[in-house]
Amino acid sequence: MSRIGKQTLVFDNSPVIRASAAVVGKKEGEGPLGKSFDLVLEDDTWGEKSWEIAERKMFKRAVELATEKCGIELTDVECLLGGDLLNQLISANYAARTLKMPFLGLYGACSTMSESMLIGAMMVDGGYASNVACAASSHFSTAERQFRLPLEMGTQLTPTAQRTVTGAGSVIIGRGGSFMGSEQLPEVEIHVTSATIGAVSDFGIKDGNNLGAAMAPAAADTIATHLADTGRSTDYYDLIITGDLGSLGSELLLELCREERIRIEEKHIDCGCTVFFKSQNVACGGSGCGCSASVLSAYLLKRMAAGDFKRALFMATGALMSPTSSMQGDSIPGIAHAVALERVEK
Amino acid sequence: MSRIGKQTLVFDNSPVIRASAAVVGKKEGEGPLGKSFDLVLEDDTWGEKSWEIAERKMFKRAVELATEKCGIELTDVECLLGGDLLNQLISANYAARTLKMPFLGLYGACSTMSESMLIGAMMVDGGYASNVACAASSHFSTAERQFRLPLEMGTQLTPTAQRTVTGAGSVIIGRGGSFMGSEQLPEVEIHVTSATIGAVSDFGIKDGNNLGAAMAPAAADTIATHLADTGRSTDYYDLIITGDLGSLGSELLLELCREERIRIEEKHIDCGCTVFFKSQNVACGGSGCGCSASVLSAYLLKRMAAGDFKRALFMATGALMSPTSSMQGDSIPGIAHAVALERVEK
Repeated sequence: MSRIGKQTLVFDNSPVIRASAAVVGKKEGEGPLGKSFDLVLEDDTWGEKSWEIAERKMFKRAVELATEKCGIELTDVECLLGGDLLNQLISANYAARTLKMPFLGLYGACSTMSESMLIGAMMVDGGYASNVACAASSHFSTAERQFRLPLEMGTQLTPTAQRTVTGAGSVIIGRGGSFMGSEQLPEVEIHVTSATIGAVSDFGIKDGNNLGAAMAPAAADTIATHLADTGRSTDYYDLIITGDLGSLGSELLLELCREERIRIEEKHIDCGCTVFFKSQNVACGGSGCGCSASVLSAYLLKRMAAGDFKRALFMATGALMSPTSSMQGDSIPGIAHAVALERVEK
Repeated sequence: MSRIGKQTLVFDNSPVIRASAAVVGKKEGEGPLGKSFDLVLEDDTWGEKSWEIAERKMFKRAVELATEKCGIELTDVECLLGGDLLNQLISANYAARTLKMPFLGLYGACSTMSESMLIGAMMVDGGYASNVACAASSHFSTAERQFRLPLEMGTQLTPTAQRTVTGAGSVIIGRGGSFMGSEQLPEVEIHVTSATIGAVSDFGIKDGNNLGAAMAPAAADTIATHLADTGRSTDYYDLIITGDLGSLGSELLLELCREERIRIEEKHIDCGCTVFFKSQNVACGGSGCGCSASVLSAYLLKRMAAGDFKRALFMATGALMSPTSSMQGDSIPGIAHAVALERVEK
């Protein structure tokens, strides 16, 4: 319950991640993390008449599954925090209508998952809630037709493009308690110990098919700020996780960090580079706020609970343009919020 | 720093509104509150090549003006919380790019101003920040072409429609300190004492030109929850302020409250019914998240500081649909977040 440095909040009342869950599309299920997800759709409409309705159903289901794993009722969740990429956040809004939880809608583009965890952890740490759900979703087909072109045109990916992940992820943040992953996992707590609020960076990128490059400066800025605020070097962390920079954006991040003499090469992992096989024809990798949300919720938290790493900085990155701002010739601002996670054995 | 009842956060470390400012368009400047606004545009493009760029400039200017009134620098603002109605929040995002503040983007449609104050007050009350800026904007011309039809078509307002306010409002929430309104005002503090997180209500309204009716159930629900959570009757408040229900939505709210035996008739005021003269051809009144943001920031807080009322419940209301969800036949969910404000003489 304090603030250090320029942009960092410290949570010393032990808000923990109680459980997490993710629901993804067919292609994501065929990727390297396929077996980690709680639910893989057989087709991306999930039996609904539109992709948009399927997306909100994924958002809702991810929150329900994470809540169930905690052994609590939906009515025990005192606030739902989250968002998605669709105009006016219709996935989150309509999911919140069905879930009937008190709801705060957030938009940080693909940074939404770490934004929701930052506010959610603050809410629990500060004593304003006992259990909150943090969630984000995206869907390839809803995003493509909203941000780019109708799928029916069969447009090819450019070499710098990324594929929006069809997926929703949710974590429940509560006051103390073991991480409810699976029975095979040891009994550990995953604490949210601090968070760094991102500021907007803009390096003048105007290509909507090169979002990794537009977001990399924000990621570099937030890492540098987090380390300066906390007085840490990257040695403190075993893993530095970015959301969806993809392969090109990740290279740029490493270069920017080298310029600042921040060493992350050996501990950087990008969710966008993790979710698909290269053979799946996804150019620079996965993207969308469902990318980091589902990879964190289904895979990374379980690996952390299993003991593969002890301290991680989770940093989802967002590109804050819209089709309107791009058509009006503006460049693409980026943002990254960081959340520090630490494994504590019981 | 506690939670009471189902949805209410209590702030007992005295987060206060240090200052507020609002920038509005020409038509708003010709309305009954014209002299209260800090800046009235002579034309709604504000010399820019697009309305969108004018809107983000208003957002930025409102935050700058509120910050200046506090006698602090922009770099002293530890977090900017806010949003707007445009797809992907481009007004807030691009304003945040220029303001260079740590930024959390929020989307609650027209409820965004009370959502930002709820999270901002929690951040200050919990000890996570000393000064935060909360802001929201809307613009008639950007909203009209995004949500409805090109202005060039000269479409007539339906009788139940409302006119989106061209305006941006911002408040600075800090730890203690007098409200810096104007030299004429007595020295008082305006405390944010509690806040109630809204849940989504949906009464099945499908008419995008009748948003007041879509939002009224959410307002009624949040008032009832706030009163139940705090154990208060409406007697506690001198004023219950809704955001932009307009004249029809306000009538519905009074009816819904009567059914629940909650008396608000004599103390209800709606920002959408306050911002324009009836003669200004605005059907049921003003709307947009800039409506409640600018009316609160420019007018209501000054009246409160002057002593016209002592305790107020500020509740901006949002309609959470998008053009896509409406085209797909879905009804319009509503939400309302409430923030309790109390005047304390020094």
